[in-house]
Order: sequence, then C-alpha cells, then structure tokens
Amino acid sequence: MSSQSLNKDQSQKRLLKTLRGEVVDRPPIWLMRQAGRYLPEYRKTRKQARDFLDLCYTPDLAVEVTLQPLRRFDLDAAILFADILLIPDALGQNVAFKEGEGPVLEPVTSAEELQALKLDNVATHLAPIMETLRGLSKALPSHVTLIGFAGSPWTVATYMVNGRGSPDQRATRIFAHKDSVGFQALIDLVTDATISYLRAQIDAGAEVIQLFDSWAAHMPDPQFKRWSIEPTARIVAALNESHPGVPVIGFPRGAGAGALRYVAETGINAVGLDTGVPLEWARDELQSKLPVQGNLDPFALVAGGDALRDETERQLKTLGNGSHIFNLGHGIVPETPPEHVGALVDQVTSWRR
Amino acid sequence: MSSQSLNKDQSQKRLLKTLRGEVVDRPPIWLMRQAGRYLPEYRKTRKQARDFLDLCYTPDLAVEVTLQPLRRFDLDAAILFADILLIPDALGQNVAFKEGEGPVLEPVTSAEELQALKLDNVATHLAPIMETLRGLSKALPSHVTLIGFAGSPWTVATYMVNGRGSPDQRATRIFAHKDSVGFQALIDLVTDATISYLRAQIDAGAEVIQLFDSWAAHMPDPQFKRWSIEPTARIVAALNESHPGVPVIGFPRGAGAGALRYVAETGINAVGLDTGVPLEWARDELQSKLPVQGNLDPFALVAGGDALRDETERQLKTLGNGSHIFNLGHGIVPETPPEHVGALVDQVTSWRR
Repeated sequence: MSSQSLNKDQSQKRLLKTLRGEVVDRPPIWLMRQAGRYLPEYRKTRKQARDFLDLCYTPDLAVEVTLQPLRRFDLDAAILFADILLIPDALGQNVAFKEGEGPVLEPVTSAEELQALKLDNVATHLAPIMETLRGLSKALPSHVTLIGFAGSPWTVATYMVNGRGSPDQRATRIFAHKDSVGFQALIDLVTDATISYLRAQIDAGAEVIQLFDSWAAHMPDPQFKRWSIEPTARIVAALNESHPGVPVIGFPRGAGAGALRYVAETGINAVGLDTGVPLEWARDELQSKLPVQGNLDPFALVAGGDALRDETERQLKTLGNGSHIFNLGHGIVPETPPEHVGALVDQVTSWRR
Repeated sequence: MSSQSLNKDQSQKRLLKTLRGEVVDRPPIWLMRQAGRYLPEYRKTRKQARDFLDLCYTPDLAVEVTLQPLRRFDLDAAILFADILLIPDALGQNVAFKEGEGPVLEPVTSAEELQALKLDNVATHLAPIMETLRGLSKALPSHVTLIGFAGSPWTVATYMVNGRGSPDQRATRIFAHKDSVGFQALIDLVTDATISYLRAQIDAGAEVIQLFDSWAAHMPDPQFKRWSIEPTARIVAALNESHPGVPVIGFPRGAGAGALRYVAETGINAVGLDTGVPLEWARDELQSKLPVQGNLDPFALVAGGDALRDETERQLKTLGNGSHIFNLGHGIVPETPPEHVGALVDQVTSWRR
C-alpha cells in the first residue's frame, strides 16, 4: 500500500508544513511520551495487555493509547505507540520489559551471538505495528500529523550489548573501542533492519519519522561520527531515496556542541533539542539552518504554575518566531499532572507569531 | 598557617605554570580518580578503614591513597583524596556510603530539614582533611602540584535533595522549579560552606582548586545560570579575594554548548571538558579564551591498545599545542588495567610541543 492512499489532505497539518519550510500561524506542538503512564486512561488500557511488548504488538490497544492524548489536548501530531527495542526483538534477541525495572535483554557480546540475529523475520514480526499505523492513519483528524519512529542504531545497540539501560553505556563503549569491526557488524545489522522498518512505517501511513538517539552523549568525535552520525546518514539517505519528501527529525540527546556536526552531516530535516541545549545558541547556530524541535524541561511540566508558564513563554519568545516545533527536551515523566499538559497546550496553541 | 609556608618552589610545576598562562614543554597530565579502585594497593589500604568516609577522614590513610598513583606514574599533580559529599556530612546531614550502592543521604526536602543543617561545625568536622593536605604538601615532589577540590553547590545539592545519585536528578529539579526560594536557601548554605572549606584547603597547601559540577547537564538556561553559574561565580570571587593567584578549574560535566556561558560568567581560570565535548569546537571556542582540561574517554583507557594510543594522539594534536592540561573526560573506572594508565602517561610525557 502506498503512503499516498492513506495520507489525508496535508494542507491543514502545521507540523508537516513547518518541516517543509512553510511559516504557519504558530509553532506546531506535540510531546515526547504524550501517550503514557501519566494518563489514567493509559494505565487502564495497559492492564488489558499481558505486558508492555504485548501492548505494542496489539494494534487495537496501540491505536487506543496513541489516540488518548489527542482526545484531551489539541496536539498537532500523534506518535506511533511502540518502543525502540522492537528492532532487537524482531531480530531474535530475547527482550523483556520487567515492571519497575525497564527493558532487560540477553546481551549480545560475541560474533556467535551476533550471528544468531537475523533480518529475515523482521518484516513479519513487525507487521502488527503497520496495522497500528494504518488504523491511526484512518482515525486521526485531518490536521494531525502521524509520526513514525525508531531508535538510532547506536542507541539500540547500547541496549543490545549492555542488556539494559545504564547511565554511561559502559559495556557498549568498551566493546566498540576493543572490537570496532565486530561492533560495526552489529551497527550495520541494526541499520538495515531500521531502514526496512521505517520504509514499512511510511508505507503504512507515517508522514514524518523521528530517530531517537537517546544515548548520543559522552562520545569522543570519531566514535560519535562512526556510530551515531554515519548510520543516521545512511538511514536518512535510504528513506530519501525510497520515500522522497518524508521529513526525518533527528534527536541526538546530550550531544551538546556535537549537534553542529550531526546537523551538518546526517541529512536530517529537523533537529530535536534536549533540555540542556541553550536556547539562544540553538537559535543562532541550529535554527538558522533547519527547523528545531524542543526543548521544554519535563520537570517544569511536573511543577506547573509560574515555572511552567515562564519557561514556555521563554521558549516561544526565543524560538517561536523561527522554524520551531514545540516539544519537551525529553519524554513526559509519569508523575506529570495531566492538567499541566492541558495548560501548556493551551498556552502554545493560543500564542501567535 | 599561610599557603606560602607550605608551598614548595613552584617553578618546576607544569600544571601551575600552564594555569598561569605559561607555555611549557608539554601539557601537564593528571587523571580524575587517579587514586582509586583500579589500583590493587588502593583496595588494600581501603580495607584498613571502617568505611569510605572513614578513609577520607583518616589523614594517614588519605595521604597514602593520594600518593599511590604518583609512585606508579609520572603525573604532574596529586588531587586530595576526599569526596564531594563531605560538605553535607559536615553540615549535619546523615551521609553513608553503602558498598556497591554509592552514597545514601537522608534527603532534605523541607524548610525544617534545611533549618537543621548548620555551618557552625563545618570547620571542625573537616579539620582532618586539612591535616591530609598538610601531609601531602610535605610529601609531594617539587614538580607535582597539589589540587584541592569540592563539588559545585548544584551538584552537591542534587544528592542532598534526592538522597542518592540519579540519572536525571528528578527530585531536585522538581523541587527547584516548585520552590525556588527554598532551594536558593539550600544552595546559599552549601555555597557558604564550600567557600570556607576551600579557603581552608588552600591555607593547608592546595595550590589549585577544582570545582566538580558533575550534574550540570539537562538544565534550561535560567536554571543553569541560577543554580550552577551564579554559585560557582560566588565561590571563585571569594577565593580570588582571600587567595589571589590560586587558580580554579571548573568542570561543568555535560553542559554542552552551555560551557560557553559558564566560561564567560563564572570567572574560572580553566575549564574541564567531558568526553562528549568535540575537540575542534573546544579548541576554537574555549581554548581560545582559557586553558582547557580533558577529555580522553575513560573507556578508551579501559580498552587500551590502538584505541587508546590513537585517541591520545588525537587529543595531543588537537589541543596539545595550546593551553592544555591532559586529563580524562570523566573519572577512571574500576575495571581499568593500571598498565594502560602507565602507557597513557608515557605517551603524554614523552610528547613535545
């Protein structure tokens, strides 16, 4: 099925227009993890699934949780409900989500373990995700853009090697230094799987792709270039070739000044800013080159009140007159009161350039 | 006791000369956590203390572990063996180091709990640290610079509020947004305690001070300004007034492009670069203004071999001809083979400008 048959009239979509360089009345807004544990209706739907992976792989439930925030808030985009670790799961690595512990994977640390992972089943394994996207594409109002996503190969690989999240990705970073040939093979495999996965997402209705490089921090330049920038550039080039005109937002979280090189060398169409990126620097050095997305502090959203209002105003004043997609600098945290999200969305959607 | 009576002839000290703007034969080298668990002799001495805090507060043992890496490697500096959480301990907060768990503190989350903390006992409580410094000052060879240190008030406060290390300092960041007046009182208290502590360190023989802002990442500009830059500026100004000429190295780990503002507004004499800071950006944007310190990947040091040699060479080529103090971008990790540290130190000390 081609994307043309699914996409609605795109003339009303602020997010898509912004990504294509048009100036609209105000910055479009969506929020990372807008579907999630801070919403009571999410927690209720979550109980209908066996576990977190089952929620991702059950299209009816995944469509439902994706739509939940749109029923409450006037958002400009819906993002597919899924997880960056569906790729290792589809490659045949043992992935589990343990309550209160986050993801746990059987670590891949040798050539033999890598050999056991196969591209062959990826498309079949991830077919339910495409069903979710087709369902969303039909269900969404015409002004709402549908975002598909994947983790960047580096970030996905850190979980595959380390076996779980870690503050410094120690096992992966040592592995990559010690055996760069072996690690390159892993990165290449994940990159190939990600390209097919994202092409299928676009065919199933995704209008924009976001690549989450959540662990892009702390890398020396040559490693950042080889493990983050190059695989990202390969994905962007492959999508541009098969699906020209579908914008890709890259989110190199924690890359700091490395964002300059990331923007210059990956071919992404817009860059996500984490909370620590100074706004005026982002305006002068990044927004002058491409649309920027971000970067409200998720903890200002937890606090609410003046802290939230002032920080939102500062974002709009500094970035809002340029090419800007309003978002957080990191995902919504579970302790966020939903009414604070409502206040934020009201403030942004009533602001005018 | 004045610092003059303790300091040796400083003409042979590469680190001090570099910090004062002189060009010496090669970059001085020291390594964050150069005294620590990767050394078998450290693990042996550690067993003679009741616990980690007892090790810090027992001058004979603290002098011994500070000197251990100097016996193995030709380093240009020794850094006092202590911990950034001695300040909350001295203020009367309950601090414990649990084996395999890191520090655990009784969290400070209300005005009443803050009231219970007192500056009065700080000097007495930290007197053993000054004895350690006096011992080191006598013991060190004349070419070795003695570095004193403290955590920055923001970083120390994150442990005080959160009760332990956390990847995102969530509790502290929410507290600071919700009750900025209460949080300012905590920051002011820690800043005052840190100023007296560092003045005493210099009186006891510290020739250089490093301020570790290990959790400087992820903050929006106004919070970074208020909680990291301003208290740091206050400490630097106070030390400049009481002890002019003693250089302060600031290490805003993870601040990314925020380092520009940190350098411009704190008054520090040199800036530490974490591993993720791109070297050419650091050379052009920071080293043009003041000496830089860093930023070899501690995981390249674990890997050793070509990965370590190439990365060290890249550091020296890019930064070594300017005002540069060779160091890691983060502390040595326990799994580091001591012989890799030896190879690194040999490579740096045999390099010439």
